[in-house]
Amino acid sequence: MPEFLNLLPPKVALARFLEHVQIHLEAEQIDVKLAQGRVTNADIHAPHSLPSFPRSTVDGYAVIASDTHGASDSLPVYMNLIGEVLMGRSADFSLSLSECGLIHTGGMLPQGADAVVMLENTQGAHPREIEIYKAVAVGENVIKVGEDVHEGEIVLPGGRMLRAPEIGGLLALGITKLEVTKQPKIAIISSGDEVVPPGADIGPGQVRDINSYTLAALVDQVGAIPRNYGIIPDDADSLHAITSQALDECDMVVITAGSSASSRDLTAQVIDSLGEPGVISHGVNVRPGKPTILAACKVKGSEFAKPVIGLPGNPVSALVIAFLFVEPIIDFLHGLRIPRIRPLIKARISVNLASQAGREDWVPVKLIPNGDGYNADPIFGKSNLIFTLSRADGLLHIPPQMTGLNAGELADIMLLN
Amino acid sequence: MPEFLNLLPPKVALARFLEHVQIHLEAEQIDVKLAQGRVTNADIHAPHSLPSFPRSTVDGYAVIASDTHGASDSLPVYMNLIGEVLMGRSADFSLSLSECGLIHTGGMLPQGADAVVMLENTQGAHPREIEIYKAVAVGENVIKVGEDVHEGEIVLPGGRMLRAPEIGGLLALGITKLEVTKQPKIAIISSGDEVVPPGADIGPGQVRDINSYTLAALVDQVGAIPRNYGIIPDDADSLHAITSQALDECDMVVITAGSSASSRDLTAQVIDSLGEPGVISHGVNVRPGKPTILAACKVKGSEFAKPVIGLPGNPVSALVIAFLFVEPIIDFLHGLRIPRIRPLIKARISVNLASQAGREDWVPVKLIPNGDGYNADPIFGKSNLIFTLSRADGLLHIPPQMTGLNAGELADIMLLN
Repeated sequence: MPEFLNLLPPKVALARFLEHVQIHLEAEQIDVKLAQGRVTNADIHAPHSLPSFPRSTVDGYAVIASDTHGASDSLPVYMNLIGEVLMGRSADFSLSLSECGLIHTGGMLPQGADAVVMLENTQGAHPREIEIYKAVAVGENVIKVGEDVHEGEIVLPGGRMLRAPEIGGLLALGITKLEVTKQPKIAIISSGDEVVPPGADIGPGQVRDINSYTLAALVDQVGAIPRNYGIIPDDADSLHAITSQALDECDMVVITAGSSASSRDLTAQVIDSLGEPGVISHGVNVRPGKPTILAACKVKGSEFAKPVIGLPGNPVSALVIAFLFVEPIIDFLHGLRIPRIRPLIKARISVNLASQAGREDWVPVKLIPNGDGYNADPIFGKSNLIFTLSRADGLLHIPPQMTGLNAGELADIMLLN
Repeated sequence: MPEFLNLLPPKVALARFLEHVQIHLEAEQIDVKLAQGRVTNADIHAPHSLPSFPRSTVDGYAVIASDTHGASDSLPVYMNLIGEVLMGRSADFSLSLSECGLIHTGGMLPQGADAVVMLENTQGAHPREIEIYKAVAVGENVIKVGEDVHEGEIVLPGGRMLRAPEIGGLLALGITKLEVTKQPKIAIISSGDEVVPPGADIGPGQVRDINSYTLAALVDQVGAIPRNYGIIPDDADSLHAITSQALDECDMVVITAGSSASSRDLTAQVIDSLGEPGVISHGVNVRPGKPTILAACKVKGSEFAKPVIGLPGNPVSALVIAFLFVEPIIDFLHGLRIPRIRPLIKARISVNLASQAGREDWVPVKLIPNGDGYNADPIFGKSNLIFTLSRADGLLHIPPQMTGLNAGELADIMLLN
């Protein structure tokens, strides 16, 4: 466990780390209506084509397109109106040459019809006769059977997260139950002799545990299940016992150490002893969050190395590292095949910001609308001041290869909401 | 109710509409740990300063800064080591001139100390004597009492949504219960003779209800409570009865009409009859989603006009309008004082896209990473094809004043996740 030598930037560290993690996805069946944020376990095929009947996209008259050839304002084509298509029903008539039927947007084309003339391009001549002022091509103003999806087509690949449109698409096909991967269970452990529960009065030298709850909020937000294992004193045996239990019961363990170096060292030692391969990297070239521990540990009798992440004790560092590592690792454990697109928005930095070459920086910023977008005002403060984050709308990114940003430059901001 | 004359772009239409809506915020007390996504009902003041004691930000020796004046590598200052500060406790000693105490990151400064010298700038000379190689100023490597927040300071203003950092900040102050505004209850009603429940087999001309569920998913995602009132046939009496009931029981009513013009007209008439002032605008200059109805209706005996929104029946239009109108209206009803920052990311459009001057367009796009960011590939399809949205990562924005975008131009994309 060499500490802080040849530290990798976060993206590289994460990619290398994930090579050591094995996942074992379990499936469960759920109600599609409640599937938001869940991940498909296998490809989903369309049980039938959608739409399942040809539909009009306008209000007008269903026709045989070839009947309308040559129709114009000066030389209309006359057609016999033989009926109306009611919504939600098939027509009780079918079209022959020079016949048309009244149809509404979304209505089912009658037998024989292959196009629809818009109402505004027609006029009623007599009660049963319509003047058509515009020619239509075959298929015009019509959605064909299968134009959305064809029967048997893969409508959702496995490993895809469900959002509102996917829920809608599945229900449109009559798919009301769905196999998804089980939500990962994430153990959260706090350690540190100075840490007490949030409800407790604090004595001199004590601080309240906040990391357990900020992490639980993040875990919940990305669709996993947080499990809180409490506050453990800086004692190797207690910490080993609880992390072993957590590793056994959950899919991932996240430990925030106390703020002292000895608490961090103890945490690293305990994590490394949990199972093979143990600590993969100790330290990441990022600020805040350098003393991050990335480990993968096999519990006895299992072939699967589960992630065990040691977060810095400072609440700001812990949250930044949770965004950079814990969230993407959860997505990986959840079976998400294409990484989630993180909303990085552009904003103009209001002051010069220096950074160290090779190190990636994330600076809390307040976003101020400037008419054309946003200015980003850095919120300076030590990384143990939780309210520096509470005053921030996002985190400004200074990439590893840059030595800083000049006032007025556009930078990427990771939104905190 | 003049239809589609002088249509306003969405932002203007929304701002004008909100002037007609009155809100009546009710408060409830909840557990801070579960407060993610909730909105503060009043300013929150710090019950005590944070930190509540001076803390070291490094591992080293607590000193009286003036004792270190002139210390350098060649001329160290010698100090008497009189004790160690244990984590989570106050020191059992206080410093006098030329005395120092071992301290850890996060430890509480002993009485008399006003700075900390980092361990790497010191060396143990004898068991009880430390060589100091670097002078420190008063306050160096120390977080002062109240450096995060001062007692009595407003730490969270009313009308602010709680994210992980706010939860952490409140818990750090020992605030475990919180007054928040009640979550708005949003009634969702589907109408249309052609619409059947998702679990039903579809006959010729019928389509399954998907808008009720895509809308419920969105409502849930922005922290409100969806209430589904079912599918109502295109019949004025039935629709009036159910929307009246919904308006009475909920804070907002969202109705998706059937796809036919007659169903839309019926919906508009029923909405207008629910209460004063009724329909504010019918039609918005946006594609998709032009036939949107924005109404505010007072139920009998109440002074508060609640929003009633008529969405287009096409599922893509319905979702786009939900993003543009339903979500910000919910935030307004929830008491959010500063609008939520929507994650608009920049991407390079891959083809030329035309638009009509004055009209705002939202085009479903797939985002393809291009090394430096994303390219946006439009997904063309009629707005009743739900899977055009399911294949999309976001919606590309063409502002009202533009007549299109050229291939290679950067555009704003509203992410769909």
